[in-house]
Amino acid sequence: MDKGTRRAPTGDTVYISVVGGGAAPEAERETARAVGRLVAEAGAVLVCGGLGGTMEAACRGARERGGLTIGILPGTERSDANPFVDLAIPTGLGEARNALVVRAADAVIAVAGEFGTLSEIALALSTGVPVVGIGTWELSRRGEPVDAFERFDDPDVAVSAALALAASRREEKLAP
Amino acid sequence: MDKGTRRAPTGDTVYISVVGGGAAPEAERETARAVGRLVAEAGAVLVCGGLGGTMEAACRGARERGGLTIGILPGTERSDANPFVDLAIPTGLGEARNALVVRAADAVIAVAGEFGTLSEIALALSTGVPVVGIGTWELSRRGEPVDAFERFDDPDVAVSAALALAASRREEKLAP
Amino acid sequence: MDKGTRRAPTGDTVYISVVGGGAAPEAERETARAVGRLVAEAGAVLVCGGLGGTMEAACRGARERGGLTIGILPGTERSDANPFVDLAIPTGLGEARNALVVRAADAVIAVAGEFGTLSEIALALSTGVPVVGIGTWELSRRGEPVDAFERFDDPDVAVSAALALAASRREEKLAP
Amino acid sequence: MDKGTRRAPTGDTVYISVVGGGAAPEAERETARAVGRLVAEAGAVLVCGGLGGTMEAACRGARERGGLTIGILPGTERSDANPFVDLAIPTGLGEARNALVVRAADAVIAVAGEFGTLSEIALALSTGVPVVGIGTWELSRRGEPVDAFERFDDPDVAVSAALALAASRREEKLAP
Repeated sequence: MDKGTRRAPTGDTVYISVVGGGAAPEAERETARAVGRLVAEAGAVLVCGGLGGTMEAACRGARERGGLTIGILPGTERSDANPFVDLAIPTGLGEARNALVVRAADAVIAVAGEFGTLSEIALALSTGVPVVGIGTWELSRRGEPVDAFERFDDPDVAVSAALALAASRREEKLAP
Repeated sequence: MDKGTRRAPTGDTVYISVVGGGAAPEAERETARAVGRLVAEAGAVLVCGGLGGTMEAACRGARERGGLTIGILPGTERSDANPFVDLAIPTGLGEARNALVVRAADAVIAVAGEFGTLSEIALALSTGVPVVGIGTWELSRRGEPVDAFERFDDPDVAVSAALALAASRREEKLAP
Repeated sequence: MDKGTRRAPTGDTVYISVVGGGAAPEAERETARAVGRLVAEAGAVLVCGGLGGTMEAACRGARERGGLTIGILPGTERSDANPFVDLAIPTGLGEARNALVVRAADAVIAVAGEFGTLSEIALALSTGVPVVGIGTWELSRRGEPVDAFERFDDPDVAVSAALALAASRREEKLAP
Repeated sequence: MDKGTRRAPTGDTVYISVVGGGAAPEAERETARAVGRLVAEAGAVLVCGGLGGTMEAACRGARERGGLTIGILPGTERSDANPFVDLAIPTGLGEARNALVVRAADAVIAVAGEFGTLSEIALALSTGVPVVGIGTWELSRRGEPVDAFERFDDPDVAVSAALALAASRREEKLAP
């Protein structure tokens, strides 16, 4: 499928960013891959940070279902992208590119992840991009849990939730 | 062709950024459209700033030949993209996104353009991205012309030159 | 003191970023003001996001002790800065400027705060900038607390800890 | 004077960015140094890209007159700043930081310079920041000179012109 043809995005295409660790254990990579497949099956474009681990697994899954994948890279070289990125954007912004990974999306799906992932969750929440989590960070403040986003164990349910949130957000933006 | 299928990019795909004015007279838009067609016919991805004028015309031309187009937008809304952008990346960086339009490319083709275009030419020249010009800025310093990039009138010759420069640069990067 | 003279920074000057909510209740603003005073008393430059709430209170405190304050603003207008910012840098990067607030610092002190603050904590942790918290976010993953940074209630202790962490980091950087 | 005291900036303080080559011949460095002195004598803050050559010379001149200097660096390390930078902001944005050097200023003074300097001139012109040139780039398009900014040989006249342009721009912004 890699070099075949695939559906081109249109103005209605949904963009889903999958964020997670650049180095991730097998189980997380399998989850990310399943997420990638489901995102592609829904006809959405998969955006990520373009590197390895969770990002690579998500792109791989999307590719397996003929989806289109974008990698927004921290460095200046397109060759930093994992082999399942279709379109690599080398930003040269370092970690500041995390803000772009979030801005590019109608919704963000966080799969586990480290502090970089936490920054993407937080940037999404602070700029109104909906977030869905799978086995990722939990937040609290002064001992009080802050339930800022929905969490799921099942990739299928998580992707459905993310797509629903993305659709709602689009409608809000279009509303007069 | 808009909603059809098209070749997916691979690791060998060349990226060409077309830069020019957001408002451009008919003749410049026709030139940009011809450039877009030629870029797509060569199997290259067309990158641009995503807005109107030259950018829109270039994307339109690329679409007419089944090419893939990326718009790296200054604002935060994907809907700012012209209708011929396949993949819109809203950066929210304002004019600082000009650096990203340049970084994303193996070579830049400047079609006429205003000061924003001049900044993209200059950013490309200062970071080693080859530039080809069509009816665009001429530079001199203390009365001495500075021939920093090749100029052509014919879109066909300009695109061929840009593709050759892009290929040379890739080889240099791959060289040990 | 506002228009008076103050010590100029030198190559050895420490930079401390104070991050927190743009709208903050009185108690948090008082904490931030105390932090600002202590940062200035230590001869450190106070960096922040330049806006209101916690940022303004921290700058105010620093000013009261003759300190120098820098505001790294998300917008393009210097006039967005709070009145206690000495040097305002309008970035026009939106929330992506959070990465710059963190990069500018030898250590970050988080006073309470919302999701933007969380993103700054996370960006600091992911790029190796030490963080100290006062009444701010607590992190956990899959039910397990992640103690990624020290927390204090007393501004005095928090600032001392931040200065010590900043000094250690500097030494590490200078080590061969 | 280096470690002494100097006037603190206020809300009315003017910011002048001096842009030019990171490696510059003696004559250009002397010009930049004279510019730096004059900027400081006028009570303006001197902003630059923080590195060597013209930037260093301008900062040195400003320091000699007790002025305050800001270096907005492309890399992530404050230690990249030249020794005459008072406040170093390591952005980690690479050449995209050129946009920030321009945004920080009420007016830009270009002293000679290479392509990076040209990008700063162009970014200033495209975002409405006034530019004054000394021995720097000349622009034309299709054989027609484009006189987009004033040029002077004498640093004294150039700085006066820049200050006047900065004042006009401020008034425009304040006008209802």
